[in-house]
Parts: sequence; structure tokens; C-alpha cells
Amino acid sequence: MIALENLEIVPVKNAELRHLLQYNIDQKTKPQGSLGQLEELAMQIGLVQQTTQPSLNKPVMLTIASDHEITNEKVSPVPTEITWQQCLNFLNGGGGIGFLCQHFGFDLYVVDAGVNYDFEPYPKLINKKVRKGSRNFLNEPAMTLEECNQALQNGRDIVADFAKKGTNVIGFGEMGIGNSSPATALLSVYAGIPVETCTGPGCGLEPEGVNHKAQVLKQAIEKLGIAATPEENLARFGGLEIATIAGGMLEAAHRRMLILVDGFITTSGFLAAYAINPAVKDYAIFSHCSNEPGHVKMLDFIKGKPLLDLQLRLGEGTGAALAYPIVQASVAMLNKMTSFSETKVYNIIG
Amino acid sequence: MIALENLEIVPVKNAELRHLLQYNIDQKTKPQGSLGQLEELAMQIGLVQQTTQPSLNKPVMLTIASDHEITNEKVSPVPTEITWQQCLNFLNGGGGIGFLCQHFGFDLYVVDAGVNYDFEPYPKLINKKVRKGSRNFLNEPAMTLEECNQALQNGRDIVADFAKKGTNVIGFGEMGIGNSSPATALLSVYAGIPVETCTGPGCGLEPEGVNHKAQVLKQAIEKLGIAATPEENLARFGGLEIATIAGGMLEAAHRRMLILVDGFITTSGFLAAYAINPAVKDYAIFSHCSNEPGHVKMLDFIKGKPLLDLQLRLGEGTGAALAYPIVQASVAMLNKMTSFSETKVYNIIG
Repeated sequence: MIALENLEIVPVKNAELRHLLQYNIDQKTKPQGSLGQLEELAMQIGLVQQTTQPSLNKPVMLTIASDHEITNEKVSPVPTEITWQQCLNFLNGGGGIGFLCQHFGFDLYVVDAGVNYDFEPYPKLINKKVRKGSRNFLNEPAMTLEECNQALQNGRDIVADFAKKGTNVIGFGEMGIGNSSPATALLSVYAGIPVETCTGPGCGLEPEGVNHKAQVLKQAIEKLGIAATPEENLARFGGLEIATIAGGMLEAAHRRMLILVDGFITTSGFLAAYAINPAVKDYAIFSHCSNEPGHVKMLDFIKGKPLLDLQLRLGEGTGAALAYPIVQASVAMLNKMTSFSETKVYNIIG
Repeated sequence: MIALENLEIVPVKNAELRHLLQYNIDQKTKPQGSLGQLEELAMQIGLVQQTTQPSLNKPVMLTIASDHEITNEKVSPVPTEITWQQCLNFLNGGGGIGFLCQHFGFDLYVVDAGVNYDFEPYPKLINKKVRKGSRNFLNEPAMTLEECNQALQNGRDIVADFAKKGTNVIGFGEMGIGNSSPATALLSVYAGIPVETCTGPGCGLEPEGVNHKAQVLKQAIEKLGIAATPEENLARFGGLEIATIAGGMLEAAHRRMLILVDGFITTSGFLAAYAINPAVKDYAIFSHCSNEPGHVKMLDFIKGKPLLDLQLRLGEGTGAALAYPIVQASVAMLNKMTSFSETKVYNIIG
């Protein structure tokens, strides 16, 4: 795919820097390892930024939205108009992601990747609509390869623009009624898990509805078949916001930015990016484990260790925003926490 | 005990307010329950403050320090001088709790509850030394009832002072080489768990050392016996910082303040407070589950649901500080997140 050209991602392997970072972390006035995941995060961020004194600059949250014609199969209990209504809500500072971005200092942008609605222009609305919703993949691929390609490229372009403006940490979230169906199908296809064992309630299906959704997804995968390349599987079973997320994450890793991965749907975009180039994982911080039952299977598959487990199941980027203070604290540990050499505390490390 | 007089704690039961808070939470533009523990926290804080619009005022962190003569039994791998050295480090803004309090906006105070050192005065050092370290409870009770009583009263007095200055949320942490031994003994005694099944490495014992520590604790409990009252057990097996924490938490609940409970040692102080008056739990937020293996048993015993699980094992209040942004976010949800009535989003709740 042309959208995936010039997309080298450098694995963050640097034995010398790793050693130096570990030394600095161990010289902090605390028993070795006693700050747990904070120490692991500090190591990762140092390696991503290639420095012992990292910084987090101009954090941006992208809430990427699209609609899904698979909703014609009654896989979601809520009306599809909520997709565009929530986008407007977010653009006015509302919704879960609106108040959390204000609270935690993210610059929030809503990306229209394929919403079935004609938006008026908004300063923080990025128009990257490929078409009004992905197709019903019970009948045909959700996207043509060209559409999927365009969505991947759109994600890359958006992230490249923020990188040029100085952003080095970027949260990904999503809004799209019905999008737990493509996310579940992608989990099944990429991780090789039977779809009926990883289908959940999404934003609120009753158990009967979950069974029906699992059957729809099973039929869809049987009918379209599993393709040979990650991009083709993304086109068959994904969604426009999911492909845009995947492209954005790949570009972010290419540019050595930190990626904050939100919940189930956003992680399905990460799965696609990871299938395309596993080095993207070095740049990804898994913010939380969602209450959607497939999410823990996704995280297990990619061996991603989430920071939070607060039984969230809202999406939008809310988990990524909530985990950000922990990321900030890990950077503060590297830059501001005292070392044994600066104090009169016995160096218990020796 | 006179220290426990005039200590009524009102359980936060208010059916009408609970209903109103639930209504407000459910009217936020999101599926019901989709913000998970954030919603539960918002409910708790609203009930504690008796309002639908709570606020967090002048957050204080108390890092309460003491020494322990049980260290004569080689139950800790590090020198006891680290207790006072770390107190000075914290008072100078250092250590884990120093940078985290600066980062998250806590006013940090170090309380000398029983450190084996003569400190010069510091503006943020609160001198409540009962004696220089609790006694070796392999031989005799860690504290006399009078000493324990004094430590409980000291905790109450400190918290009462901050309450009068307008603080309504208070974090508790600790510093004390050897204090995982009294914390483990208290867990065993209050929760009825054999001590050899809940003894862990503390700040870094090797497995042999853990076995030795478990044997010391087992002998101590057998020798001194389990007392009939929670206060006597606290005096026999506790420590001066742990008793001061217990008194502080009881006073905080008495004054309807929010209590941020840190890790293993601090939760042992909570266990004592809870044994004295279980209503204290309504006011407590369990910030994290520590990597010290006994902590999950403590949390199970009191049915406390921690916010974080970051494999921390530093104490000092670090987990309480790290969880605070989630507490703040839950308050922001109540006060700032849009409701269906304010937006054009379909009310999917009906």
C-alpha cells in the first residue's frame, strides 16, 4: 500500500542508554524497583525520546469518529445518530473526553473519519471523511482497499502535522456507534481467537444481543474469509476510524512520539498497526484494561501491560486521558526525584 | 481509651442524596456505568460531603514516621538510620513522596511519631514523638496502652488542625524501617490469617529472610497472645506511626474528610481504625494495591477496592498521591461533564 511507504519504525533498542537509564532510576532514593510500573514507563519514555531527561510536549488527544453499516444487523442497542451528536458534544467541550481533556491538559481534536453526517466547520474538527460510514461487512468488505488506504494515510497526515507543531505525545480514542463489532472481528482475525469467545456487550447489549452479535460476526468472517495481509483484513473487517487510528499510530512511532492507547476499539486499531509493523509497540503505552471482555484478550495477545483497570467502557480516549498523570509522574521521577548522591540517605543499592 | 472519646463517625447513608447523585451520574452523556470506578468514587465523595457538587480543598499528605525495635530481630535488610535520613530527604522535597506531592499539588508534612533521632525544627515537620521507636514486640508489647493512646490522640490532633484550616481530603503515608513487621502482625491478628501465610519481603528481604521474619512474628504473636480489644492489639503489635495513622483516620472520618489510604503499612493503620469503628470505611479511598503480598489480603478482608495496581512497594504515601488525579477526575465528572439535558445527544438512558 502506498499509504505505508516511507514508514520506517526504529525499535527502541539502545543498550547503552538503557543501562544509563536503569542506573539513574536505581540511584533514586528508594529500594530498586519499588516504584513498579512507574519505573518501567520511565525506561520506555527515555528510550523512545533517546534521553535520560525526557519531556512531554503539547499533548494532543485525537477522538476519531466514524459510522458503521454493520449496525443494520442490530449489533448495537443505541441509535447511530449518537455518533455525530457526540462529536458535536465533544467539540463543545462535553462528554467524557471533553471534561477529561480540559482536566488533564490535552488539546482535544475530533477527527471525522467517516461519520454519516455533514458537519459545519469547527476549529477543532479535522475533516478526513472517506465516506459516510464503512460498509456492512456481513455482505461485503467494510472498506475497499483504496478507502482503507486513504484512512491509513489520513491518520498519518494528521499525526505528522501535530509532530511538526511540537507534539511528542498523542492520545488516541474513538467514537462510532457499532464499532465494537469491527473491533471484535479484528481481534478474532488478528489474534486467531474464535469470534464467539470474544464478543461482548459493547455499549450495552443484553446477553441475547451479545449472542446475536457473535453470530453476525461469525457469519461475516466465514463469508469474507481471512485475508493474507493485515491491510486486507483491516479493509474487510475494520472501520474508517479504526484504520485512521492505525495509520496515525504508525506515523507516531515513525516520528518517535509516545502513543497513548485507549480501550477496546482503539486497541483494535493498534492491533492492525502492530500486524503491519510490530515495532510500533515500543512507542505505545496501554492506558487501561476496559470492561469490554475482549480487551483483556487483545492486551494478552500483544503482551501489553495496562496502567489502569477502572472498569471503564466508554472509549472516546477517556482511559488514555485518565492514565496520563501516571505517565507524567514517571517523567517527573526521572527529572525531579532526588538521587542518593544528592542526599544524606544511605545508598542501600550500594 | 480517652483518645477515642467524642469520636462519633456518621455512616454516609442518605437514601435521598444517593438517589439524586445516581440520577445526576446517569444523566451524564455516556452509557450508564461506563465510567466504572470513577462513578463509584463520585458517589462516595458526594455522600461524604453531603452534596451533589463536591470539591477537594487544600489536599494534605501526612507521611508519618517511626522506628521499630523489632528490627533487632533482623527482620529488615536495611539500616534503621534510613528512617530519619528519609524524613529529612522528604522535608527537603526529595524521595518518592517529595516529588509526587509537588507534582500533584499536595501540601506534604512529615510527622515524627517516634523516630529514633533528634530533628532540628522544620516548617513542615510535626513533632509528635511519643518515644524513640516502639519496643521489640518479640519480648514485650510494642507500646504501653498509654503510649498507644497518645499516638492515637496525636493523629486526631493533627488531622483536627488541618480540618480547621479547610482541608477536606487527606492522604496518609508512612516511613519506618522495619514497619512491615508490625503491619503483617496486625493483618494476622485483625483478619485472623496465620502470619506465616501473609509475611512478605518488605523493602527487599530474600526468601530466607522472609521465612525468618515470619517465624519471629509467629513467636511474637504466640508469646503476647491476641487481646480482646482492637486498641490492645494495636499496642501489642503495632507501631507509633501506625497508631498515629489510625487515630488520624478516625478523626478524619469524624470530620467527614476524605481519607486517601496508601499501601501495606498505611492500610494496617486503617485496619486498626476499622477494628475500632468500621464506619471509617465510608470515608476511605483505597489508592492502590501494593506489591507486598499481604496487601491484597488486607484489602480483601476490608472489602476495599483499590484504584491502582502499579506494583508499587515504596510506601511514604506515593500510591495515595498517584491515585489522586483519578479522585479529582471523579469530582470533575460530577461538576463539569455535560448532561443529556444540556446537549442534543439522544438520552439513551430514557
